[in-house]
Amino acid sequence: MTQTTIGIIGGGQLGRMLAMAAARLNFRTMILEPQADCPAAQVANRQIVASYTDPSALAELARSCDIITYEFENVPVEAAHKLAEERPVFPPAKALEVAQDRLTEKQFLNGVGIPTADFRAVDNQDGLVAALADFGGQGVLKTRRMGYDGKGQKVFRAGDAADGAFAELGGVPLILESFVPFEREVSVIAARGTDGSIVCFDVAENVHRNGILHTSTVPARITPTTEQAARAAADKLLSGLGYVGVIGIEFFVLPDGSLIANEIAPRVHNSGHWTEAACVVSQFEQHIRAVAGLPLGATERHSDCVMTNLIGNDIADVPAWLSRTNTLVHLYGKTEARPGRKMGHVTELK
Amino acid sequence: MTQTTIGIIGGGQLGRMLAMAAARLNFRTMILEPQADCPAAQVANRQIVASYTDPSALAELARSCDIITYEFENVPVEAAHKLAEERPVFPPAKALEVAQDRLTEKQFLNGVGIPTADFRAVDNQDGLVAALADFGGQGVLKTRRMGYDGKGQKVFRAGDAADGAFAELGGVPLILESFVPFEREVSVIAARGTDGSIVCFDVAENVHRNGILHTSTVPARITPTTEQAARAAADKLLSGLGYVGVIGIEFFVLPDGSLIANEIAPRVHNSGHWTEAACVVSQFEQHIRAVAGLPLGATERHSDCVMTNLIGNDIADVPAWLSRTNTLVHLYGKTEARPGRKMGHVTELK
Repeated sequence: MTQTTIGIIGGGQLGRMLAMAAARLNFRTMILEPQADCPAAQVANRQIVASYTDPSALAELARSCDIITYEFENVPVEAAHKLAEERPVFPPAKALEVAQDRLTEKQFLNGVGIPTADFRAVDNQDGLVAALADFGGQGVLKTRRMGYDGKGQKVFRAGDAADGAFAELGGVPLILESFVPFEREVSVIAARGTDGSIVCFDVAENVHRNGILHTSTVPARITPTTEQAARAAADKLLSGLGYVGVIGIEFFVLPDGSLIANEIAPRVHNSGHWTEAACVVSQFEQHIRAVAGLPLGATERHSDCVMTNLIGNDIADVPAWLSRTNTLVHLYGKTEARPGRKMGHVTELK
Repeated sequence: MTQTTIGIIGGGQLGRMLAMAAARLNFRTMILEPQADCPAAQVANRQIVASYTDPSALAELARSCDIITYEFENVPVEAAHKLAEERPVFPPAKALEVAQDRLTEKQFLNGVGIPTADFRAVDNQDGLVAALADFGGQGVLKTRRMGYDGKGQKVFRAGDAADGAFAELGGVPLILESFVPFEREVSVIAARGTDGSIVCFDVAENVHRNGILHTSTVPARITPTTEQAARAAADKLLSGLGYVGVIGIEFFVLPDGSLIANEIAPRVHNSGHWTEAACVVSQFEQHIRAVAGLPLGATERHSDCVMTNLIGNDIADVPAWLSRTNTLVHLYGKTEARPGRKMGHVTELK
């Protein structure tokens, strides 16, 4: 019986949790990550210590692995294409292309019938001024590429000066998104198998702090109609992308209960961490099942719950969390608690 | 923030599950195991490939780890004593001494007020004949040391000849145990912290096949009085041993509901695997919490369940198990499915 090896590009906490889920299903794992002794490598069979674009590292990954996946959406698309010549790479490179550029992402979402905020491409300072005028002087200006956890963003309220803002965000292609008068934020974690089957975990309600996810609560305070709309959007998106694996889709919920897609993450997602505590099959196992061509797992939750991220010095709260009943504590093996750094999470069953 | 390293002696599936539980609590793990690339090492930070008695390997383990524990009860007691001179070793060596010898074990259990089957030490063929005569010609003859999963045992029914039986079991010290007319088998998984606090998971009902655990079902079909008796026995045993860590205690349930202790395992136990699916804190995390001096976790189960072992070729049933709702599949990373070998387990929530 030969074991299948799954290559994982990226060695952070998502890769770590994927590696443990893979191990429980008898897969071996190999992590490609420039930082030695990274969180994922600590629980994986092997690590290639190299950059995500190193040609010989990519060749070694393709040679050593049967299937290749990734834990973050900024994997270079060229690397994914190159690997895909040798081995199955899931999710497909198309998902990376769409998710890496906020403009492409919104255009793709609209193209498959999923509403987003109104938006304008902003390629220079004049374009910014024109776009702001379209939106009554307000909106969120974001870099099209490489933004995450609230980084690379600037908020404009009516009357704010636009002077120098294009340069301030690095002089790179930007997108201005109109404000969405949302009531709450929710997300759905969905999966599509190699056979085209699609399943969704229950919708979570998310609260962000300083642009970083703070809590995910399940169930979300939404109507069955809204829940159904989130699932329907996941169906359209995953089918449209020919997707394989787990995806996270974040939405704004409007006062009338309708949904506006905010962004997608073609990977396991922080707002799905609760599944490890409240479902038999976690999002991590679901992703491994999907990319390995196994049947997708059931998504029913056995308990209501709240997942709370431990960011930076929140790690000091661990002793208190460990003393709480019904609380699963999950830490990431990171030695340095920098501000804004995700150190772990806790999920309290209700 | 320096991470604490936990040394684990033994690299099988129990060490593997301990290592993953340790990782989730930010501990690093180092496995001592002669078989390279063993199940535990695949998910641990490091492995020392050496025998459990290799002096330089033990010295390295003590030097590299902050706390040392083990995943099987046949760790040489001398090794445990030697390590304990350098580092905390939990469970204490006393537990190994008691558990490694069926005679010592029964004497210790009786000494703390826990009933066992009647027994006789058997040191030669004449002793066997005399002991059988005491028990009406029947009973179970077992090696005092190194037996597990039904190995090193011989059953005598009334009228069976004893000729040559002492030699047949290797000419080593034996014990004859009287038959217990039991109605069912149950076990309790208990834990004692460094502060002396003791908690128990719910009692599981166990079914064995060919001397190997086949299923554990929770709840067991026992009365609250019997459940309480199992917990009380765990209290006596753990206090009596000055124990730290998780222990498994197997009992026979008599028709009147009273309990006879069968054997103890000073480690996480196969009949506690269900806890990873039905409790927030698994027996593996509980053991790590205990040996690391963290508060013990709550033991309430959120679901009823049945754990089924996958032995040898049962591994072929995995595709079917993966398609079942509410079933957690957990495999051990073993490449060769030998008869009687534990390859994985599944827990179905009810």
